[in-house]
Amino acid sequence: MKVTVIGLGLIGGSLAMDLRKHKLATDLIGVDFNQAHAQQAVELGLVDRILPEDKALAESDVVLLTIPVNAIGALLPTILDQIGKNTVVIDTGSTKGLICKSVSGHARRNQFVAAHPISGTENSGPTAALEGLFVGKTNIICEHEKSSDQSLKIAQSIFDAVGLKTIFMEAEEHDKHVAYVSHLSHVSSFLLGQTVLDIEKDEKNIFDLAGSGFASTVRLAKSSPAMWAPIFEQNSEYLSQALLEYIMHLQKFHYHLMKKDSKELMKTLTNANGIRRVLEKK
Amino acid sequence: MKVTVIGLGLIGGSLAMDLRKHKLATDLIGVDFNQAHAQQAVELGLVDRILPEDKALAESDVVLLTIPVNAIGALLPTILDQIGKNTVVIDTGSTKGLICKSVSGHARRNQFVAAHPISGTENSGPTAALEGLFVGKTNIICEHEKSSDQSLKIAQSIFDAVGLKTIFMEAEEHDKHVAYVSHLSHVSSFLLGQTVLDIEKDEKNIFDLAGSGFASTVRLAKSSPAMWAPIFEQNSEYLSQALLEYIMHLQKFHYHLMKKDSKELMKTLTNANGIRRVLEKK
Repeated sequence: MKVTVIGLGLIGGSLAMDLRKHKLATDLIGVDFNQAHAQQAVELGLVDRILPEDKALAESDVVLLTIPVNAIGALLPTILDQIGKNTVVIDTGSTKGLICKSVSGHARRNQFVAAHPISGTENSGPTAALEGLFVGKTNIICEHEKSSDQSLKIAQSIFDAVGLKTIFMEAEEHDKHVAYVSHLSHVSSFLLGQTVLDIEKDEKNIFDLAGSGFASTVRLAKSSPAMWAPIFEQNSEYLSQALLEYIMHLQKFHYHLMKKDSKELMKTLTNANGIRRVLEKK
Repeated sequence: MKVTVIGLGLIGGSLAMDLRKHKLATDLIGVDFNQAHAQQAVELGLVDRILPEDKALAESDVVLLTIPVNAIGALLPTILDQIGKNTVVIDTGSTKGLICKSVSGHARRNQFVAAHPISGTENSGPTAALEGLFVGKTNIICEHEKSSDQSLKIAQSIFDAVGLKTIFMEAEEHDKHVAYVSHLSHVSSFLLGQTVLDIEKDEKNIFDLAGSGFASTVRLAKSSPAMWAPIFEQNSEYLSQALLEYIMHLQKFHYHLMKKDSKELMKTLTNANGIRRVLEKK
């Protein structure tokens, strides 16, 4: 199987690594607008060679679209215009509504599989690629009824090979759910980072006091802005709902704190402990 | 050295473990109002024996006070009343202002060392005790000028033995700094957990979609309410400031999100990335 990876970062690079390892890809072509990343990806052995996009599309069985979600929405229609009639295009974007809409009326919509493997780290670029990144993680395919059986079969063979467990969901449902369990976590972490960096201007050496709890809570604030800003923007409606609920909970907590209402504080923290049940199930 | 540990949980248990290992404690006495915890601590070998508080105080060289901060504030004055003239009392509470105030006029204030080893996990109770928990972590001693040289020397020998790096700070300064780098992280995590649990009532299986990023951001929401509610309450003034700044940043982000202001979103996330510099220094 000849596979083109457009976007040689954490996700694209990790997929390339695993597809080679599991012998699904016999030829791995890389495409990246960032020349330094393209070169790095070849040096790291993630892909065999770099080609211009049009050449790569012309000769590929599978095209993996692993670039920021705004770029996926912008490129996807013209990519479908250019591919052969047996080529399958799979995206891995963290939003699905606008991406699906961008090709909803396209003549080759059935050669596209809209996917979201929920995995990653706070690092980015080709050097962030990790073998086995997807093992045991959840993958969501949206609007699977709009993809041909053949396209789904090929996509599924790729997801199975890298160890993903695939489930199916409507695009809107997907966007709503990830707003809470992924996008909101990232926002809370980015803004916690900013709040503490802000105070650091006046209070030097404040970070000497930061324990491992702080590091874990702000880990996601290290994530790539070029990847996350478009995700937040594309999912602004559901993220806004999640964010307003989060702010409302913080304000309620602040109210109980100011009233020194021990009972309500205990109640809030005890409720939040319920997250243990959820995390331990996973 | 005969050491009494009052409060046989994560911190008390871990200190006992390390003091035995490094041969600083020749006799380890445990005190805990929770009889099940007391028994567990003996079974786990954290302490040699359990005594009622008054008996334990009467025969100890060092008393470690490793209980929730509200209990420290309440018990500390009567503990100082009961100890012999060479006994040193050390607390490990995460707030220092009110604890120091509770004994500011006490005749034996100089036999007390107010400390805060910044370490822990989200687990609690005797079974959460960990060997080596304190290695390389920061310890803060407040109002050291109010402790006698002899008390400080003994306390320092304990902190050095378990691997803590001790620094000195005023109690108010301590409380302000930890509000940002520790207490706020915990609040943001507890409330993120609550927000997502709340939405789960309507949206079943939402947690199938939670990746490792979510797990890391809500890890602290598993922490003990009995420990954290009193910390938040005792540090309510500084925590309130930190919390209001955090909410303000979240609201500003929400405003940019609603305006789909890509430039401002990118700017915010890029600023927050600065946390990488801080975390990598540590």
